[in-house]
Amino acid sequence: MQYNMTREEKFMQEAIQLSQNAIDNNNGGPFGSVIVKNNIVIGRGYNKVTSTNDPTAHAEMVAIRDACKNINSFQLEDCEIYTSCEPCPMCLGAIYWARAKHIYIGNTRQDAADAGFDDAMMYGEICAPIEKRKIPMETVGRQAANKVFINWNDKEKKARY
Amino acid sequence: MQYNMTREEKFMQEAIQLSQNAIDNNNGGPFGSVIVKNNIVIGRGYNKVTSTNDPTAHAEMVAIRDACKNINSFQLEDCEIYTSCEPCPMCLGAIYWARAKHIYIGNTRQDAADAGFDDAMMYGEICAPIEKRKIPMETVGRQAANKVFINWNDKEKKARY
Repeated sequence: MQYNMTREEKFMQEAIQLSQNAIDNNNGGPFGSVIVKNNIVIGRGYNKVTSTNDPTAHAEMVAIRDACKNINSFQLEDCEIYTSCEPCPMCLGAIYWARAKHIYIGNTRQDAADAGFDDAMMYGEICAPIEKRKIPMETVGRQAANKVFINWNDKEKKARY
Repeated sequence: MQYNMTREEKFMQEAIQLSQNAIDNNNGGPFGSVIVKNNIVIGRGYNKVTSTNDPTAHAEMVAIRDACKNINSFQLEDCEIYTSCEPCPMCLGAIYWARAKHIYIGNTRQDAADAGFDDAMMYGEICAPIEKRKIPMETVGRQAANKVFINWNDKEKKARY
């Protein structure tokens, strides 16, 4: 009963349609997303990991990049993001960097796990102490790396983000 | 004393050089990364958030996309990632999705925070329970979204990732 839909349900419906398109067209997994500013869709994305050999091409990432390109900004202040599934940590990180204001999700991370996607495991890994993670991480050349941070802080003209 | 460098220090040196280039050329923040497979650099990246209006264009993301493109795969199995700074949650998520085997970091997340970058805050947000995060998240249209997951699972020919 579409005439009774809220605005949020309408925008989510578009994200869900993109998720269906992604699998119909063999672009990638069943995920779609739209970015909304002042009630207008300014960016769209669907998963295209497998079709473009890009593990970062999740629906939300593609939508964020599309929206930023369309508004010529690396920030999405006052924007809502609608995504057919709860963002994985990568996508949630991107949403924070873009400084969106509100996230609407369709499926939850548990729904994603039930459908065979690793998002729930990934939250566990990323929030675990470094020494307990599956991918080992170690420090090399910290002093040399830190010198560039000092150079950055000494630089007068720079675009902060 | 370059002649005494370990292989890891040499690869890290290249990542650090990319981080310096990023600020010298006004591409973005002081971050660089290389991806190594069988002792060969197969991907390179530096931060270009502000110069390309892309909040996802962190050094590691750019390096992962470059490496995947170069080897025609959405996986980086048996690859090492060298990054001039500990990955933020977005980049760490991408490293997990790409299934890299080892992460070498220069600066730590605390070094990043000291240089004015929000990575430490972001780990706090992403690992916090949903209701305690700064960006609100709510569920809309879960049933319709979930139908597409069912369609995905019913689909016979599909590329999993």
